[in-house]
Amino acid sequence: MTSASNSVGIVAPKTAHFKQPFKVSCGRELPSLDIVYETYGELNAEHSNAVLVCHALSGDHHAAGYHSAEDKKPGWWDNYIGPGKAIDTNHFYVVSLNNIGGCAGSTGPSTINPETNEPWGPDFPTLRVRDWVETQRMLADSLAIEQWAAVIGGSLGGMQAMRWALEYPDRLRHCVVIASALKLTAQNIAFNKTSRTAISSDPDFHEGRYYQHNTLPKSGLAIARMIGHITYLSDGVMGEKFGRDLRSGTFEQGVESELEFQVESYLRYQGDIFSENFDANTYMLMTKALDYFDLAREYDNDAVKAFSAAKCRFLVVSFTSDWRFSPERSREIVKALIGAEKSVSYAEVDAALGHDSFLLPVERYNNLFTAYMQKVAQEQSQGDNHAT
Amino acid sequence: MTSASNSVGIVAPKTAHFKQPFKVSCGRELPSLDIVYETYGELNAEHSNAVLVCHALSGDHHAAGYHSAEDKKPGWWDNYIGPGKAIDTNHFYVVSLNNIGGCAGSTGPSTINPETNEPWGPDFPTLRVRDWVETQRMLADSLAIEQWAAVIGGSLGGMQAMRWALEYPDRLRHCVVIASALKLTAQNIAFNKTSRTAISSDPDFHEGRYYQHNTLPKSGLAIARMIGHITYLSDGVMGEKFGRDLRSGTFEQGVESELEFQVESYLRYQGDIFSENFDANTYMLMTKALDYFDLAREYDNDAVKAFSAAKCRFLVVSFTSDWRFSPERSREIVKALIGAEKSVSYAEVDAALGHDSFLLPVERYNNLFTAYMQKVAQEQSQGDNHAT
Repeated sequence: MTSASNSVGIVAPKTAHFKQPFKVSCGRELPSLDIVYETYGELNAEHSNAVLVCHALSGDHHAAGYHSAEDKKPGWWDNYIGPGKAIDTNHFYVVSLNNIGGCAGSTGPSTINPETNEPWGPDFPTLRVRDWVETQRMLADSLAIEQWAAVIGGSLGGMQAMRWALEYPDRLRHCVVIASALKLTAQNIAFNKTSRTAISSDPDFHEGRYYQHNTLPKSGLAIARMIGHITYLSDGVMGEKFGRDLRSGTFEQGVESELEFQVESYLRYQGDIFSENFDANTYMLMTKALDYFDLAREYDNDAVKAFSAAKCRFLVVSFTSDWRFSPERSREIVKALIGAEKSVSYAEVDAALGHDSFLLPVERYNNLFTAYMQKVAQEQSQGDNHAT
Repeated sequence: MTSASNSVGIVAPKTAHFKQPFKVSCGRELPSLDIVYETYGELNAEHSNAVLVCHALSGDHHAAGYHSAEDKKPGWWDNYIGPGKAIDTNHFYVVSLNNIGGCAGSTGPSTINPETNEPWGPDFPTLRVRDWVETQRMLADSLAIEQWAAVIGGSLGGMQAMRWALEYPDRLRHCVVIASALKLTAQNIAFNKTSRTAISSDPDFHEGRYYQHNTLPKSGLAIARMIGHITYLSDGVMGEKFGRDLRSGTFEQGVESELEFQVESYLRYQGDIFSENFDANTYMLMTKALDYFDLAREYDNDAVKAFSAAKCRFLVVSFTSDWRFSPERSREIVKALIGAEKSVSYAEVDAALGHDSFLLPVERYNNLFTAYMQKVAQEQSQGDNHAT
C-alpha cells in the first residue's frame, strides 16, 4: 500500500443491523438487513458534510483506502476519494456501502435466510434501484444524516443518485451522475442477457443453488466478466493497450494452438480472477436491476415530469469514448433536467478509456469534479456559518 | 419460396473431389479434399464471365436461390445474386463454395479423417485465409476458370478477396471488398476470444471431441451467436427493432423472473437455432482465421507493399453503423491501395444495420454495387469482342 498523504489510509468496514422486516419493491419481504459500509473523513457537528457514494455493478463498500498494511490495491474509487482529492475527506464525511443483494457482506443471495437456514440463492427477492435508495435512506437515518451534501455515483451508481433526487428531494443538496443513463438501451440489455445466459448455462450454476452443491459457476462468470471488460473499455484503448501483440507462439510456427494474443490472455486472467471473487447470483440480480431501471416509467415515460419534484442541483458527466453509457444518454438526462428547470452542470469529457473512465484518473474529469465538490464544500461551510 | 423472375430458382450443390494431398499453410497435410459448391448463371465460351463469391464466418456455398420448392429461405446473399441483381446471373457465372474447415459438406472438422475413420474434430489443421484462396484456386482450375471477372466477399469473405489479389494477381480482374479490414482490432479479437471461451467452457464440447460423445456444445454456441448478433447489429437498429418492449411479464407484477424483454427473447431464439445447425469446431477455426489474418504481416507490415503486386481493380464498401468492421478499417484498405497506385472505388454507405448491412437490402449499396458490376460485365463483353 501507499502511505501517501492523499490516502484515507487503513479503513475498517462496519455493519449496520436492521431488525425490522424490509419490504422490497417487488412485494416480498426480507426479515432483517445487514448493511456493510465504510466511512472516510469526519462527520461535522451539524451533520451537514455527509456524502453518499453509490457503487456500480461490481463495486462494494470499499471505495477508498486499504484494509491492511499488506493490501496491494486500494478501494475502487481511491482516485477520487481522499484528503485533497475530488471528494475531499478533509471536508466531507463519505459514506460508502455495499448495496443489499451484493456479495461483500450486506444481506444478499449468498447470506443465510434466517427462515430456512440456507443461503437465499436464487430465492433472494428481485431488487430495483429504488430498493437500494430505500436501504441507503435507512442507513442515513441510523447515522443521523438528515440531508446529504451530495449523493454521487457512476453508471448503476448514477441511477441510484438520480432516484434519490426523486424519492427524497429534501434529503440531498447535490446529485452527481457520472457515465449513467435514464434507462438502458436494447443493446445494453442484450449484453446483460448474454452474460446472464453464460452464467445460467454453466452446469455448476445449478439454477443458483451452487452453494448447496459446493460448486461455483466460474466459467459462466468469467465469460460475463470478459464481455464486461470489452464493453467497458473502448475499441481505441484496447488497441493501444494490446494491439495485435502475441503473448505466446509465433505466426510462423506450425502449432497454432499455442498462439495467443495479449488481449486474449488479459481477458482470460481478468475473467478468472473475477469468477473466484464475485457471487453469480449477485451478478444476475444487479444486471437485472440495471435492465429494469427506467427513471421515467411511472411518470408517463416523461423524464421532465420525473425530475420535476427534485430540489437538488445536478452535475452530469459523460466520456466521449464510453459506448455503453454514451454521452447521448447523459445528454438525455441533462435535457430532461433543463426541461424541469433544474440547476445542472454538464461536462462531456474527452477521454479514451471508455465507460471505465469514471473510475480512472482523467485530468479534465478530475479537475471539474474537484471544482464542483469544492463549491459544495464552500456552500456547506457558509450554510453552517449561517446556522451558527 | 418465391418464383420471382429475379431469383436463380432451385439450385443443387455439387461436390468437387481432389484426391491429391493438400498442404496446409500451417505445415500439415489433408490427404484429400471435398469442396461443395453451387453455380448460378452460365459460363460463357471464353470462360471470362466467372465470379467467385467468398463467404464469411457463418456462411456457406448456398448463396442464392432455393434447394427445394418447400424452402422458406433463399441463400445468404440472394439479395445481391440473381437475374437483374447486383451480381447479375444473366451476365455472370457465379461460383460459391463452402470453404474447407466449414460444416456444410466441404472437408472440415465434422468430416471423417480417412486415416483414423473418426471425425477430424479439434485435430483438423488450423487454417488461414490463404488456405481458402488456395483451395478456391484449385476449384477454379477444375472448372477451367483461368481468370475471374471478379472475386467478391464481405467481412471474412473480403479478406479472401484481398488475398486473391496478392497471391494470384493474374487470375482476377476485379476485387470487391465489403465491410472488411486489413486485420482485426484488439476489440474484435477479444469478442472472438469470448465466443470461443463460451464454446470451450461448455462441458458438452469435450475439447472438440463432442461427435464421439454424442453431444453438441449448444449452450456455448448459442452464447457465441448472441455475441455475434449484438455486435453485427448497430445499437441504433436494436433500439428501433426492440426498444425496451417486454415479451412477457409486466413491471408491476411481483414475479419478476417471468419478466423478459423482446430483445432477450430474440437473442435466445437466434442462439438456439444456430447452435443446432452450426459446427462448433468450425466456429473455433473460422474465428481464429479471422484473428490471424493480417494482410501486410509478411510485407514488413506495410499494406502498400502488400498490394503492390496486385493487378486488378478494386471496389471497397463500408457502412456507417458497422462498428466491428468500421469505415475506418475500409479507409485503411483504400489508403494502402492508393499508396500502391491501384485503381480503387470507395463507398461509405449510410446504413443503419451495422455489419449485417452487407447482407441486407440497402438501396445505395445496391445501386453502387450494381453499377460497378455492370461495368465489369460491359468490359468483359468488350474484351470478348476484341478476342474474336
